Amino acid sequence: MTACIFVSPAEESAGAARADRLHPVDPAAPQIPVTDLGVTRGDGIFEVIGVRSGHPLMLEAHLHRLANSAVMLDLPTLDLEAIRAAVLQVIESDGLLVESSVKVVVTRGVEGTGVPICWVLSSPAEDFRKDRTEGVRVVLLDRGYPHDIAARAPWLLTGAKTLSYAVNKAVLREAARRDADDVIFTSSDGYLLEGPSSNLIAKFGSRIWTPAPAQGILRGTTQAAVFEVFSELGFSTAEVLMMVDQVVDADALWLASSTRLLAPVRAVDGHEIAVDHELSDAVNESLLSGTR
Amino acid sequence: MTACIFVSPAEESAGAARADRLHPVDPAAPQIPVTDLGVTRGDGIFEVIGVRSGHPLMLEAHLHRLANSAVMLDLPTLDLEAIRAAVLQVIESDGLLVESSVKVVVTRGVEGTGVPICWVLSSPAEDFRKDRTEGVRVVLLDRGYPHDIAARAPWLLTGAKTLSYAVNKAVLREAARRDADDVIFTSSDGYLLEGPSSNLIAKFGSRIWTPAPAQGILRGTTQAAVFEVFSELGFSTAEVLMMVDQVVDADALWLASSTRLLAPVRAVDGHEIAVDHELSDAVNESLLSGTR
Repeated sequence: MTACIFVSPAEESAGAARADRLHPVDPAAPQIPVTDLGVTRGDGIFEVIGVRSGHPLMLEAHLHRLANSAVMLDLPTLDLEAIRAAVLQVIESDGLLVESSVKVVVTRGVEGTGVPICWVLSSPAEDFRKDRTEGVRVVLLDRGYPHDIAARAPWLLTGAKTLSYAVNKAVLREAARRDADDVIFTSSDGYLLEGPSSNLIAKFGSRIWTPAPAQGILRGTTQAAVFEVFSELGFSTAEVLMMVDQVVDADALWLASSTRLLAPVRAVDGHEIAVDHELSDAVNESLLSGTR
Repeated sequence: MTACIFVSPAEESAGAARADRLHPVDPAAPQIPVTDLGVTRGDGIFEVIGVRSGHPLMLEAHLHRLANSAVMLDLPTLDLEAIRAAVLQVIESDGLLVESSVKVVVTRGVEGTGVPICWVLSSPAEDFRKDRTEGVRVVLLDRGYPHDIAARAPWLLTGAKTLSYAVNKAVLREAARRDADDVIFTSSDGYLLEGPSSNLIAKFGSRIWTPAPAQGILRGTTQAAVFEVFSELGFSTAEVLMMVDQVVDADALWLASSTRLLAPVRAVDGHEIAVDHELSDAVNESLLSGTR
């Protein structure tokens, strides 16, 4: 129920037909050397793409963001055509699962070679229906950076989707210790940012807001699709600065991510907040229709 | 000239003799599955141990720090005896290189298993003699966090040596763009912190200072050994808070790390500073004597 394809870099296989550059492997067998910079330094990038009945959701937006992360990490230019072909091929070899996901990983490769390693892996999606209908409990955790960090210190790679996600996992363990399911990061100067693998979306009357990516936030592929749906439903949408204390004034809050899609927030730091089930269901149904 | 040994976790091999839990493998062959959390999330820890003529330098301090990083990342308790045995065995199988290094890596393992993966890899050391004698040019780069971050936000894992080192590599590329060799991180509130893989040491007359680890700095194994040497040479040593502008008042600055050892800083942000060759040589010779 899973498939994995390695993608040769273009410069290593000049002249080879694209299909000859895709190498299906056994995902259960060891594939990565211990000297790969992805595993020794978290030095690489990734994307996770939701798949619905064989259709990859927001595929172009994910490929675009992958290319952008590559630039931020000074990785060689990616061959997005070959990666796209690999994504479609793993989905096909995986059969028509109702919901699955595809992960694309690019590491800087074995130290000293300068040749990135890229693979594409499909797996069945977790069952997120409960998260989408009942919602998730979140805690606010300081990310330590001021909200203008991206412009001040681009070397911190905020806004790139890197393999260095140990902190993104650590905050989920901290959330569990506080009896919560997920996290909303805040800036050291009091702004709401994003989740460790999701974007925050807030409803204030007829307005739908998300924290502006310039705050060192990963630009959301699902958030962008969610904004399209909200626009079609007659809401106005905007990327804004939101202070922490505005969280209590919102009519509804959601976390948007590629496989879980739109998960309503039902508690922040232990305080219950209202869930707009009707609106959540409408947006998720539109996302799952696979037209994006 | 390199060797690699995988170490089975104790709970997976209860009753097995220690030697049966060490599994030598070919370091050039693929060893890590694509679903290992080390490679997909930088979710793990590591140490790099300098080796001089078959003797691992400051081995106990490295094992102690590895265990501390494991606690900070909520990893299962490590079997340090088995890891120590693996370190000694890779050094032995590697022959008596004059200078080499051993890397110990522990990942959280394949997602869902809860079983960490641990390996120990030896490799010939780079030739750092020029860095030790001529010195390195550094730039100051903002790490984005205030100096009291570790107490305020332990979930950010400052002070743990994690595999999520993409930023530590990105700042070296930024240094190269600024015609420098290395970096000293500063806090967002103006304190001197550490290098991306080294500790800062400063000399003011008869006093030797290093920034206090409570500022979210990785406690330095080599820095501790360097302090021992300086004490023996009659200097007083202390862990302190140092403001950025104190950098110009120091008689000498060094970066201390496990394989490069004590590298004098010969320029900060393009401004030349004096190198104390005699003192640098004396300390490095003591470290290389392998008595620690």
